[in-house]
Amino acid sequence: MPKKKLLSACLALLACTAMAAEPKAKLPTVAELIKASSAADWRAPAPVSTLVMQLASGVVVIELARDFAPQHVANILQLTRAGYFDGLAIIRVQDNYVTQWGDPEEDDAKARPKPKDLPKAAPEFDRPLKGLKFTALPETDGWAPMEGFVDGWPVAANPKTGRAWLAHCYGMVGVARDAEPASGDGSGLYTVIGQAPRALDLNIAKAGRVLQGMELLSALPRGTGELGFYEKAEQRVPILRVRVLADIPETERPHLQVMRTDTALFQRVLDARRHRDGWYVQSPDRVELCSALPTVRPAP
Amino acid sequence: MPKKKLLSACLALLACTAMAAEPKAKLPTVAELIKASSAADWRAPAPVSTLVMQLASGVVVIELARDFAPQHVANILQLTRAGYFDGLAIIRVQDNYVTQWGDPEEDDAKARPKPKDLPKAAPEFDRPLKGLKFTALPETDGWAPMEGFVDGWPVAANPKTGRAWLAHCYGMVGVARDAEPASGDGSGLYTVIGQAPRALDLNIAKAGRVLQGMELLSALPRGTGELGFYEKAEQRVPILRVRVLADIPETERPHLQVMRTDTALFQRVLDARRHRDGWYVQSPDRVELCSALPTVRPAP
Repeated sequence: MPKKKLLSACLALLACTAMAAEPKAKLPTVAELIKASSAADWRAPAPVSTLVMQLASGVVVIELARDFAPQHVANILQLTRAGYFDGLAIIRVQDNYVTQWGDPEEDDAKARPKPKDLPKAAPEFDRPLKGLKFTALPETDGWAPMEGFVDGWPVAANPKTGRAWLAHCYGMVGVARDAEPASGDGSGLYTVIGQAPRALDLNIAKAGRVLQGMELLSALPRGTGELGFYEKAEQRVPILRVRVLADIPETERPHLQVMRTDTALFQRVLDARRHRDGWYVQSPDRVELCSALPTVRPAP
Repeated sequence: MPKKKLLSACLALLACTAMAAEPKAKLPTVAELIKASSAADWRAPAPVSTLVMQLASGVVVIELARDFAPQHVANILQLTRAGYFDGLAIIRVQDNYVTQWGDPEEDDAKARPKPKDLPKAAPEFDRPLKGLKFTALPETDGWAPMEGFVDGWPVAANPKTGRAWLAHCYGMVGVARDAEPASGDGSGLYTVIGQAPRALDLNIAKAGRVLQGMELLSALPRGTGELGFYEKAEQRVPILRVRVLADIPETERPHLQVMRTDTALFQRVLDARRHRDGWYVQSPDRVELCSALPTVRPAP
């Protein structure tokens, strides 16, 4: 059975680089680099700005992007601690686009009340490039003159305007808003479940990234209503509870690590993604921002 | 209720361009352009090279790419007509990557026999650029010097080498292969369910595109085995039957249309994707190959 799995895996696109017997010297794989990494190559997400969303199917862990959308993050934390999200639901799943959650009755008399002192959110769609410790990629995908990583986050920037912003990659979490740019208060959130919709980049606040449980959001039935909204209340996926990681007893917390992006290891990982042999007949010799997000793993 | 749906939709990222009351003159939307299109702006997929895959959950329609992988397409058609796929299964779903189907027992004594005269497949990973009616985009995403569309297919090309190849976009269908480049015989297929894995572009044969039923493949539970393989036989999703569209009685066929990509309409659609107003505060002013695939609709 293990042999069969290896064989099937090898038949299956990508695994042969690591698995097939290769006579020639091989480049190190990402898996090999991770295995040889040290504790200093990883960081833990800050408990005060990480969410744990409990669904019936399991736990979704979301790191919030304090340095990119501080007001939105503060709002989301305030809403979370007020219990705002508990008992709300996933209300929309649009194929190759987004899964969105919040209050299905938001526009109705039955809308769940929000904390009275919840600030209005600023349109934090970008921020100054200055002050960011930027690990730039030599490649860009055409969406910005400069792209790379800041503390694990996928970031695009324009040195001419001096602005930087989070890229809308798979698994990134954004804040739904109305036509008014400052109308996203953090009570409606979504994550990207398809090709990165980079046209949205400078048009909405990105507030986080799903670190664990992405498959609980991406594999949901697509909604059949307009824009993928679920048409019937019973189709919605209940959110049992959302908590801030810091508010969970230490022994009950999920412990995750994100690969640091300002290290020699991360550069070697990028090179391992660029230069492929084994199964590959044509090495891609490039990486792309949204296909090179740093690995997340359970803390060893 | 309709009002609520509109309001929710408007709160939900994208819809406000079309739905919010906008005082200023608006650019035409893709929906408006489609509504005003004529019959000549659309083409039907050729029945002799289109598959209809029946799952318990519904029907998946796949157009095959005869001009890009003729030998693979011939093999897939031969396997289909021999009933090879009937009763096989979806065996692998890896998040942000691929859904794959074929014979779970392929490497075992229990493997389903293939037609004895099934040709060995050539490694049709690219083809001559010459002879293609190429509608090039002014933009590229960095994966190739030239990108655009040929008869509705997303194509990358290198004028220096004179080669062209299908891009690994969301919903494209490829042929799984072993370490040997010519080992993909068409019996194992996959489709892309996440960020386009363009590093695979020149390394494997792309043989088609899912035109209908993508959500039946993308919303499946992710496999928990290595590379997303389902670990237990009962987790696999049975394929009830696969037929060539031409072999289905006319009255029972799904009738689809793909927007033509060599038309003035398609250029206007691309412009509508590039230049946004209404909900957008920053027009993206660009499109990206894998985010601009031509619309598919039921034949009116």
